[in-house]
Amino acid sequence: MKKIEHIGIAVKDLEASNELYTKLFGVGPYKEEAVESEFVKTSFFRAGPNKIELLQATDERSAIHAYIDKKGEGIHHIAFAVEDIEAETARLKGEGFQALLEKPKKGADNKLVMFFHPKTTGGVLIELCQDIPS
Amino acid sequence: MKKIEHIGIAVKDLEASNELYTKLFGVGPYKEEAVESEFVKTSFFRAGPNKIELLQATDERSAIHAYIDKKGEGIHHIAFAVEDIEAETARLKGEGFQALLEKPKKGADNKLVMFFHPKTTGGVLIELCQDIPS
Repeated sequence: MKKIEHIGIAVKDLEASNELYTKLFGVGPYKEEAVESEFVKTSFFRAGPNKIELLQATDERSAIHAYIDKKGEGIHHIAFAVEDIEAETARLKGEGFQALLEKPKKGADNKLVMFFHPKTTGGVLIELCQDIPS
Repeated sequence: MKKIEHIGIAVKDLEASNELYTKLFGVGPYKEEAVESEFVKTSFFRAGPNKIELLQATDERSAIHAYIDKKGEGIHHIAFAVEDIEAETARLKGEGFQALLEKPKKGADNKLVMFFHPKTTGGVLIELCQDIPS
């Protein structure tokens, strides 16, 4: 794992949360992005080498909608940057972690992403991500 | 905020979780430390510029004990490194965030720490930390 790429935080209202996190960081989000395949809209804040991603569901089919229904607003996942997402996914599967996708797919922020089930990772939804080569 | 200094994860059994996270990171914790004033024992893993801190309660008076009772194992807090914890605490209080300590106190890993109440930070327990000058 190269670093914590970002922490994903589930929010009910992206606009209200953007205001709150702008107060927290002293500076606003540097980008907003909708991920239609996941039924979410997102905003990104920078903290040095790391990012905070706020996620609001845009549809009841979104995992963020289900999360907030069950647990309320809060930290949804930790994403680690990796060099080779295919190799790292294979390594973690071999260690007994349960992958949530057949294979890495395109997520927000021009990245390939993979998720591992919190039941196998001590209650923490883990994401791996790798920049898509341009 | 200079970076995410660490993410704190509440665990039931530090030894078992050390094994799990060693599989996840491919390398073991680089240090373990008890914080008796907080009734916790901790271990630290490195991810580039960031750390993961596992926390196990050693007493029912620990906040980690209460957290696990209520929510189960999982992400407990995000800690941001700051240059000047006194100034940053004052700024955040001024923005309406509720500090959980009268003033910064000594925490794990030779740091001064301050916490802000999740009710005022969108459901996320936020820690600020600053290295104690040697």
